[in-house]
Amino acid sequence: MNFNQSHISAMEKHYRTTFINSLPGYKSLHMLGTINKDGISNLGLFNSIFHVGANPPLLGMVFRPDGMDHDSLENIIQTKEYTLNNVLSNYFQQAHQTSARFPSGLSEFEPCGFKEFYLDPFKAPFVEQASIKIGLELREIIDVSLNSTKILIGEIVHVILNEGILAQDGYIDHINAGTVTVAGLDSYFLPQELGRLPYAKFL
Amino acid sequence: MNFNQSHISAMEKHYRTTFINSLPGYKSLHMLGTINKDGISNLGLFNSIFHVGANPPLLGMVFRPDGMDHDSLENIIQTKEYTLNNVLSNYFQQAHQTSARFPSGLSEFEPCGFKEFYLDPFKAPFVEQASIKIGLELREIIDVSLNSTKILIGEIVHVILNEGILAQDGYIDHINAGTVTVAGLDSYFLPQELGRLPYAKFL
Repeated sequence: MNFNQSHISAMEKHYRTTFINSLPGYKSLHMLGTINKDGISNLGLFNSIFHVGANPPLLGMVFRPDGMDHDSLENIIQTKEYTLNNVLSNYFQQAHQTSARFPSGLSEFEPCGFKEFYLDPFKAPFVEQASIKIGLELREIIDVSLNSTKILIGEIVHVILNEGILAQDGYIDHINAGTVTVAGLDSYFLPQELGRLPYAKFL
Repeated sequence: MNFNQSHISAMEKHYRTTFINSLPGYKSLHMLGTINKDGISNLGLFNSIFHVGANPPLLGMVFRPDGMDHDSLENIIQTKEYTLNNVLSNYFQQAHQTSARFPSGLSEFEPCGFKEFYLDPFKAPFVEQASIKIGLELREIIDVSLNSTKILIGEIVHVILNEGILAQDGYIDHINAGTVTVAGLDSYFLPQELGRLPYAKFL
């Protein structure tokens, strides 16, 4: 089956959203924890996190212009801090529920069954149940003029790991961590390992 | 286990690279196909593809400043076209081999066991073996001043799918497609489905 630019632009809106979102495959899945200056927390589901660099340790993420993530983005701009927390298979349905349109000012934490965890003096809330918790400080906001999205780049300033996840060489074992991955906006998966390969050399 | 900014910056270089690259979890995995103006093709392995928008259909990807991907980036700048091809479990080891430092000007396609597929007049080569082939046109290059990486944003202009992958609502089934995912730079995984959930509503 072969779709070109005209086929794609002629697709019905929801069909195209599903098609394009699921096209690139499995993605990193995180719950984004933030807090505003009045102490009201916020939790949202994101699948657009990507590696930007290891030194300094930087992660990027995409914010849509349509306002769904308005509270999260506003909180990050206010406090310059946010957390990314992995999703485990025993609570992926609760994590999915954080993507619902909660009224602005109402925290998703308690209604969705998540507990806030704080690492004083870092302001943003972590998800206590997550086996991998990442604390970030905002470093840069890039405006993508093509479609009015914003790319946020943050520096990793805290990493909290459950026991049994970190290998001797620094590798983080997501099988042991129980990390879930997502395709599209609503399909969740638990991976099984095929193999870890040695550094590729030209022969 | 708790690592802060000083712990991370004190890590040995290779340890930190492994730690930070594997931290965010499972990532989209693609082989990037390009060609230069003299007709020499290039194939490289990328795990930094992210969704930027569905209308127009845009994907982003990160290029490191260290020159490993120099041919790919130069080819994209020359021709404005590139392809992203999914990795299947029966050739993930060959796909990993495309990440070796091949001499500039030598195509990775044949030495790694991949066949070029062209969709005239689109110039960039697809990977014939891939069950999901995406053709893109370059739309924007963003310089990330924090660490000299570049974010490329391309518009999807071709999608070629094997039979049995596309669901009725536009969802692309990566289990049927046989798509592999990656954590870190060298660990490959085949996911199993936990479930596809309905659109989350605030109750």
